[in-house]
Amino acid sequence: MNVHIASYNTFPTAAGLASSAAGYAALVTALSELFGAKETYPGEMSTIARQGSGSACRSLYGGFVAWRMGGKQDDGSDSIAQQVAPESHWPEIRALIMVVSDAKKGTSSTAGMSTSVATSSLLDYRAKELVSKRMSIIEKAWMERDFQTFGRLTMIDSNQFHAVCLDTFPPIFYMNDVSKNIIQIVHVYNEWAGEIRAAYTFDAGPNAVLYTLEIYTVELGALMLKYFPAYCEKYICNNQFKCKVDAFTLEPSLVEAAERTSIKPCVGDVKKIYFTKSGPGPKTLGPEHAVIDSKTGLNKYKA
Amino acid sequence: MNVHIASYNTFPTAAGLASSAAGYAALVTALSELFGAKETYPGEMSTIARQGSGSACRSLYGGFVAWRMGGKQDDGSDSIAQQVAPESHWPEIRALIMVVSDAKKGTSSTAGMSTSVATSSLLDYRAKELVSKRMSIIEKAWMERDFQTFGRLTMIDSNQFHAVCLDTFPPIFYMNDVSKNIIQIVHVYNEWAGEIRAAYTFDAGPNAVLYTLEIYTVELGALMLKYFPAYCEKYICNNQFKCKVDAFTLEPSLVEAAERTSIKPCVGDVKKIYFTKSGPGPKTLGPEHAVIDSKTGLNKYKA
Repeated sequence: MNVHIASYNTFPTAAGLASSAAGYAALVTALSELFGAKETYPGEMSTIARQGSGSACRSLYGGFVAWRMGGKQDDGSDSIAQQVAPESHWPEIRALIMVVSDAKKGTSSTAGMSTSVATSSLLDYRAKELVSKRMSIIEKAWMERDFQTFGRLTMIDSNQFHAVCLDTFPPIFYMNDVSKNIIQIVHVYNEWAGEIRAAYTFDAGPNAVLYTLEIYTVELGALMLKYFPAYCEKYICNNQFKCKVDAFTLEPSLVEAAERTSIKPCVGDVKKIYFTKSGPGPKTLGPEHAVIDSKTGLNKYKA
Repeated sequence: MNVHIASYNTFPTAAGLASSAAGYAALVTALSELFGAKETYPGEMSTIARQGSGSACRSLYGGFVAWRMGGKQDDGSDSIAQQVAPESHWPEIRALIMVVSDAKKGTSSTAGMSTSVATSSLLDYRAKELVSKRMSIIEKAWMERDFQTFGRLTMIDSNQFHAVCLDTFPPIFYMNDVSKNIIQIVHVYNEWAGEIRAAYTFDAGPNAVLYTLEIYTVELGALMLKYFPAYCEKYICNNQFKCKVDAFTLEPSLVEAAERTSIKPCVGDVKKIYFTKSGPGPKTLGPEHAVIDSKTGLNKYKA
């Protein structure tokens, strides 16, 4: 069977926003459906997706997904993704994705990780001593909808991943000064609140994913837009949310606390903000989703 | 005895350029001389200087100095500085100090270190498993004037120190985007040369100390000034060296390699460059060094 694959996405490509994960998960799902392929053991598809891009294995499922280390089978067949909880388990969880740069990364995450494995003397310790404990803690926190534990560990572990990148030789820097400023504002916000209301995590790029709860999204959105006025007019990719944020007045004491960082708002530091939540895995779209592309005359599918 | 202490320095203060180390070393030396104090065991003075600022213990001696961990005595009296080799041992070693910012640091190094000890899960591993081995390797490299080993480990260990700062919670960032660009240019230079000709190290601030050998100083200086044109007119604090750098033509293949980083030279990213070498410890200056300060009418001493 000859197959024509047309792939496009609505997210910046190769900018550390998991575009390769989404792409490979979609590809594996589409091909397995086309060929009627069935898993011979649970998670087998995820071991295939993983070979395109590690994190693609997680993108095969919705909600909160764990990538199991495996390591008992020489062929890596036990390094699979497992859904910890579906997206319906914690409906209040929200994400603000701050696009700091949509330029191509200097170091691809796959190449970066190989160099880290070869040269970082901290990576091995992190992998052996810290990661599996942290996995248990964060899974438990998710199951209990405990945002304090989840948020704190998310930030700590993001920082440690980037610490290992810096411990690589030559060092890898994915975060930049804007990323650093976002981190600082998140800490100011949580200190001001006396609890964790926002948690940042950075993948292999300078863009921040901020997790929060539904009740704090407008406050967090307003705070972020004050210090990181976005470049694009439709800066928050959800008009209704944008209106709420624009109409919101931040507490003067929070603004005072943020001013003490002496971060100067600068249009363009953040290009765009996506407002989203925990969603499902790949979906097969039927003919009712087809839209004819004006340039190519071919069908495009919109969810 | 009443003592009037007048302290001034020619280096930016509290900017991560060891100003407190220099200050406390000078203070301890001046007071011990004034009072005729003698050490009851070798290195005792360094345990006193260390209490003002950890790194001050090292500044009591010239050349290459090791700060011994100690840890056998509860009162810390065995955590002393020791001269590994005097400044005459490796006369070819040079340093270019790139002042990225002379603004006061967000986090003092002493406060930063306490937070790291309390929150970083990588610091303990680094301290127990890596530091003492690295100390032996670097001392040996210095004794053998082995710039390849010395330079490589200097960079690796600087990166690891900053990795631990990033693994602190909330994370500490001493380096900024300019520091990162300096690191990138140093790696380009070494890769181009096929050997290590320059090695960076960053203390608790964004400023780079670049070690090199006398034969490469002009080339390295010219490369750095091309990508980091300094703010201040007297940007290199040594006129003779500045003239040599200005007259130097960089190899086209090196410029090509550096261009591929897409780093855009920007006046002001680096404020000033000090060109210096391994020197002696604190010196007592006699009346022949006294200069009357025009503002205060008091004596100032110039080395």
